[in-house]
Amino acid sequence: MEREISQAVIRRMPRYYRYLGELLDSNVERISSNELSKLMHVTASQIRQDLNNFGGFGQQGYGYNVKFLHDEIGKILGLNQMHNVILIGAGNLGQAIANYVNFERLSFRMIGLFDVNEAKVGKTVSGVEVHHMSELQDFLMNNRVDIAALTLPKDNAEKVAEELVELGITAIWNFAHVDLEVPENVVVQNVHLSDSLMQLSYNITQI
Amino acid sequence: MEREISQAVIRRMPRYYRYLGELLDSNVERISSNELSKLMHVTASQIRQDLNNFGGFGQQGYGYNVKFLHDEIGKILGLNQMHNVILIGAGNLGQAIANYVNFERLSFRMIGLFDVNEAKVGKTVSGVEVHHMSELQDFLMNNRVDIAALTLPKDNAEKVAEELVELGITAIWNFAHVDLEVPENVVVQNVHLSDSLMQLSYNITQI
Repeated sequence: MEREISQAVIRRMPRYYRYLGELLDSNVERISSNELSKLMHVTASQIRQDLNNFGGFGQQGYGYNVKFLHDEIGKILGLNQMHNVILIGAGNLGQAIANYVNFERLSFRMIGLFDVNEAKVGKTVSGVEVHHMSELQDFLMNNRVDIAALTLPKDNAEKVAEELVELGITAIWNFAHVDLEVPENVVVQNVHLSDSLMQLSYNITQI
Repeated sequence: MEREISQAVIRRMPRYYRYLGELLDSNVERISSNELSKLMHVTASQIRQDLNNFGGFGQQGYGYNVKFLHDEIGKILGLNQMHNVILIGAGNLGQAIANYVNFERLSFRMIGLFDVNEAKVGKTVSGVEVHHMSELQDFLMNNRVDIAALTLPKDNAEKVAEELVELGITAIWNFAHVDLEVPENVVVQNVHLSDSLMQLSYNITQI
């Protein structure tokens, strides 16, 4: 696919994937865009538009084959391959994220946690060992790592991100409260919890 | 303000607030939209447009007064008042979120955690007591609660959300992997971690 697809569309794809997964679990074999529209509370035309970015998938008069569409969106999202994930910062949030990644039925596998706190080193979280940060380079030489999650205070996040990029990491899942400056060939996905909380707070003022 | 402001604008406001807070911490008193533009990697015209939604704040030839703009955006976001938060689901993620909310310099205060697991009841997380779910109604009668965070499995989230709404909660910070159906006067802010991870996964395929 040569044409660039907007991040707004990409942001909606996981939601399709989630709803189609639930339909699959309920043994629904096919669904019209109108039915999907009612279920997801988006317009049928939005659904058709979104999916047309990837070539459609629907058949006139039949609707969508749920399993086929689920699989195709999975492929688009890169979920047909396993991603090895490491995590820097094995505090509360880091441990929650490690558990989360391993428990979700997704194509992601937590393979190592890193922290500077000696008290945490050698322990396991969700079956995954916590290593000292000084072991990072060795670990990256011996393991394929596709994604690094950053769950550490913002003051350290920039420095660690730089180090990760130097060591060849090209995808960062960033929970630190800072926008990372990275080269163009590195992708960053931010989860800014306090931004989310402030957006909620704004919407409360509008009730 | 009568005119409705788009969620896309609202989503960007916390980021302004964050950058202005950092400028304040660095004792910067004023900043031009061009300087702010360079710092935040958005166009100066985007900044002016965003802030014009709320009436502007800049002065020709002077730029923005950092403290004033920070305070005004804070007010817009409702951060000039304290929000009492409770959390349902005191697992790993719940504990991380409880810590997070209390440690951030924000206008949010975690005042109670709830869980069905007897082993957790009576313990404290970040100084906040874990109550049994059966105490929820009493708690809500005796405490002002502005926001309920849901950090529980998706199978229970819908039922608990319904219960919360019946008990008068009008703002939900939802971490459960499900889109909640709520009445119109209830606001929901979702943090779908796996959606975020899938968006990252997609962007990896585009590197």
